[in-house]
Amino acid sequence: MKVRELMDKEFVYVSPEESITDVSIRMEKYRKFTSPVLDKEMKLVGWITSLDVMRAFREGKKTVEEVMYPPEETICVKENDPARLAVLKAAEYRVVSIPVLNEDGVVVGIVRSFNIVRTLSQLYEIKVSKVFEAMESELKGVSWDELMEAAAFVTKRETGERIKAKEYEERIKNSTFGEAIWATGGLEKFFVGLIAIGELVIARKVARARK
Amino acid sequence: MKVRELMDKEFVYVSPEESITDVSIRMEKYRKFTSPVLDKEMKLVGWITSLDVMRAFREGKKTVEEVMYPPEETICVKENDPARLAVLKAAEYRVVSIPVLNEDGVVVGIVRSFNIVRTLSQLYEIKVSKVFEAMESELKGVSWDELMEAAAFVTKRETGERIKAKEYEERIKNSTFGEAIWATGGLEKFFVGLIAIGELVIARKVARARK
Repeated sequence: MKVRELMDKEFVYVSPEESITDVSIRMEKYRKFTSPVLDKEMKLVGWITSLDVMRAFREGKKTVEEVMYPPEETICVKENDPARLAVLKAAEYRVVSIPVLNEDGVVVGIVRSFNIVRTLSQLYEIKVSKVFEAMESELKGVSWDELMEAAAFVTKRETGERIKAKEYEERIKNSTFGEAIWATGGLEKFFVGLIAIGELVIARKVARARK
Repeated sequence: MKVRELMDKEFVYVSPEESITDVSIRMEKYRKFTSPVLDKEMKLVGWITSLDVMRAFREGKKTVEEVMYPPEETICVKENDPARLAVLKAAEYRVVSIPVLNEDGVVVGIVRSFNIVRTLSQLYEIKVSKVFEAMESELKGVSWDELMEAAAFVTKRETGERIKAKEYEERIKNSTFGEAIWATGGLEKFFVGLIAIGELVIARKVARARK
């Protein structure tokens, strides 16, 4: 996944000569805390936040260029960078939005923290049952019911909880991978359970084939 | 994982009677776009953003209470809510920060989008090799080298890429689960590969045991 698939292609921008009053009205209208400052070729010449606009009002500054950050102090990414890079920069620099440049330095989008939060959470919002469906289709000769039986057996063995295959099936239909990870506190534990289930059904399958 | 493990316990807050000028100086000093408005018991009585402060300057308003949002329009979470709820609310309402209340309605923290981005990315920033280590320790009698051989074999079969076991080992030491998911475009594909590898080593193990 690339930055361009993560970014908002529609965004608010301002010019260096614009008045602070106009900019404040625009930021408020579109509910944006930040804006790139662009020249006529849409190239990045600065960055302004609502905190800078507040300061301009307080200090009697009149235009964007009097309070904006210069481009060399602006955290940017390129449209062809991996999407992960935008995530890591947002976390490291604690910024809520990052302008995206193309090869020519033209601003083509903005990655906002809520784009990241939404994408990260969706990526992991698949149902746990989907993982078992992938397992079923990959393991030729193992049925869904066998998988659920094995899962119930492993759950009993690892946690002591008595759960029927049907109940296990209901549970994984209603829970997401994200929930499972947050709940178990990490990927590795989640995998260990899955691997144990896989081992059981595969061993049974191989034993059947050998009969 | 609960909201209280995700939130910032230190946060800036303001009172309804404070002057807009003082609040703007404080928000700028701490680089915060938002702040809860609290009464003397630290209970939530409103919410203010730098956009509201800008508007106050523009319209000549003098105090926080003239421009703040009322508490019933403020997106909140409870400290004992699951952390996932804060993530879903941040994505749904497109907010950069969410105040966290305790049982008595006292504000005890703030979840900021960068807390979410950092936590989500860390949860998935474990090395892919850790997943294979979990597999190795779970599958008694299967060695690390066998796992790497099987992984190289499955990679060749599924993608056509000729890769040696040692090269595969290097690759998974240097790549994270997050990268693997972003790269393959989803969990299910990543799992299918893992399951195929697991099936191969388990079948070999069972065959050995039967000899």
